[in-house]
Amino acid sequence: MDLAALLADERARIDAALDRLLPPAGAWPARLHEAMRYAVFGGGKRVRPVLARAACRAAGGDPEVALEAACALEMVHTYSLIHDDLPALDNDTLRRGRATVHVAFDEALALLAGDALLTEAFAVLSRFPDRDGFAGRRAQACRMVAEAIGSRGMVGGQVEDLEATGAAPDGARLERIHAAKTGALIGAAVELGALLAGAEDARRQTFAGFGRRLGLLFQIADDILDVTGTAASLGKSPGKDAAAGKLTYPAVWGLEAARKELDALAGSLVREAEGLEGQAGTLGALVSFVARRDR
Amino acid sequence: MDLAALLADERARIDAALDRLLPPAGAWPARLHEAMRYAVFGGGKRVRPVLARAACRAAGGDPEVALEAACALEMVHTYSLIHDDLPALDNDTLRRGRATVHVAFDEALALLAGDALLTEAFAVLSRFPDRDGFAGRRAQACRMVAEAIGSRGMVGGQVEDLEATGAAPDGARLERIHAAKTGALIGAAVELGALLAGAEDARRQTFAGFGRRLGLLFQIADDILDVTGTAASLGKSPGKDAAAGKLTYPAVWGLEAARKELDALAGSLVREAEGLEGQAGTLGALVSFVARRDR
Repeated sequence: MDLAALLADERARIDAALDRLLPPAGAWPARLHEAMRYAVFGGGKRVRPVLARAACRAAGGDPEVALEAACALEMVHTYSLIHDDLPALDNDTLRRGRATVHVAFDEALALLAGDALLTEAFAVLSRFPDRDGFAGRRAQACRMVAEAIGSRGMVGGQVEDLEATGAAPDGARLERIHAAKTGALIGAAVELGALLAGAEDARRQTFAGFGRRLGLLFQIADDILDVTGTAASLGKSPGKDAAAGKLTYPAVWGLEAARKELDALAGSLVREAEGLEGQAGTLGALVSFVARRDR
Repeated sequence: MDLAALLADERARIDAALDRLLPPAGAWPARLHEAMRYAVFGGGKRVRPVLARAACRAAGGDPEVALEAACALEMVHTYSLIHDDLPALDNDTLRRGRATVHVAFDEALALLAGDALLTEAFAVLSRFPDRDGFAGRRAQACRMVAEAIGSRGMVGGQVEDLEATGAAPDGARLERIHAAKTGALIGAAVELGALLAGAEDARRQTFAGFGRRLGLLFQIADDILDVTGTAASLGKSPGKDAAAGKLTYPAVWGLEAARKELDALAGSLVREAEGLEGQAGTLGALVSFVARRDR
């Protein structure tokens, strides 16, 4: 499979849909919509929407059915980045090689643009797929995403990540943070694709479990990159986690052990992906793509 | 009608439901749930949930069907207050006579508690009413609320309110801010009640229009209170709007004209309420309650 071509094609479709779904840049209030679009169209890899669509296909559905809902996940992801970057949290000034939203605009607008993107995500999830007989799946999609990203999911992970900053290495705590902060949304992306494909509960749970483990893989790769990457390859300053005293895989287990864990998890996920979609499918290719990010 | 008794009874039911719906205080991550509960159980009047339930009854429904969804509106309202109070926005240290969340906890936790409450609101709207055949109404409720509180609704009003601070008096701009910042959520509360009662589109729109005008009444009363109230009656410092250079009814039209507008609008809304629910109903009593807040 030519993953690069597939990713480029997917990103083009997703970006076009995001452009249609977000309020136009000039619409009232213009500066807010400008900030929302600045953040959304800031060079993101669209991993979560690509995953949701790949999972929809793997579960036997038409990925076009999941297009808008997949975009809602990108809105959620973008909101979380905007708020994470704020001075009260990670205080980051650079994201994907550009000024963060509160630097390019101001703190109030960054806060409110994040709030609006989170809200818009639910507007999209509750409206799409806009087909007869899908109301139940739309309500279910809202619920699944809300539960994944709320106080017991992504936001909870964010809180514990802050609380654990500067704390002694603790493997169980690290797992809990990563599962909630990154794993929950990526798990929801994969599960959402299966849900919109019409998968039964048990099969949906299988997809969800795969997604959560893929989220963990993603976060381990991210932790390693923070140690081994360059500012140019990362689009942000490397070494920030260590400087901030964050609990990361390399900090808790060491860089070599983190890399071994990455490889072992990637191998197991490739086999899981084959079970879900057969050989040489998109989910499997995405596993390798995520795992290779640190090379 | 004994409105005080009705309100006390409604608030007790709503508070009990909020307590059931929110994660327990000790659940992981404890400090986040503590902050969410501190904000939600901070002496709010529960105007939006009371309105949603009254509208449900007025539209011929059982208000118990709307109980949880009504609570979701209070979560949304609380999130908006927490974020509004942050230093980057209104920088308020006092709310309902207590320290605001970022003062009682810290800025990061206030930001994340707001995010989590907004998210939890959609989890609740997508789950309740938990009855067969209601999936369509649940998806519709998510959409209605999301559209009311997003970038073209409540958050948009917040942005324009900030931008208009210190600007020259402008009646049209003031209306736009108030309609979005306060009117949209109160309109959605009334419309949500009608939706969950099973009202047809046209009737729902009638309820929504009444709700938006009631929201305007609410905001005019609030603006007047900021001029005439005391710290004890308000639970926050009076005169804050004028000191901050906010665009308000008294600032644009003068205090007397604002009071006349309040009385005229209240009179017209009482007649509208009679059209919706007959004489001596709860919606009408709530109009008078809102209008009397400045006395």
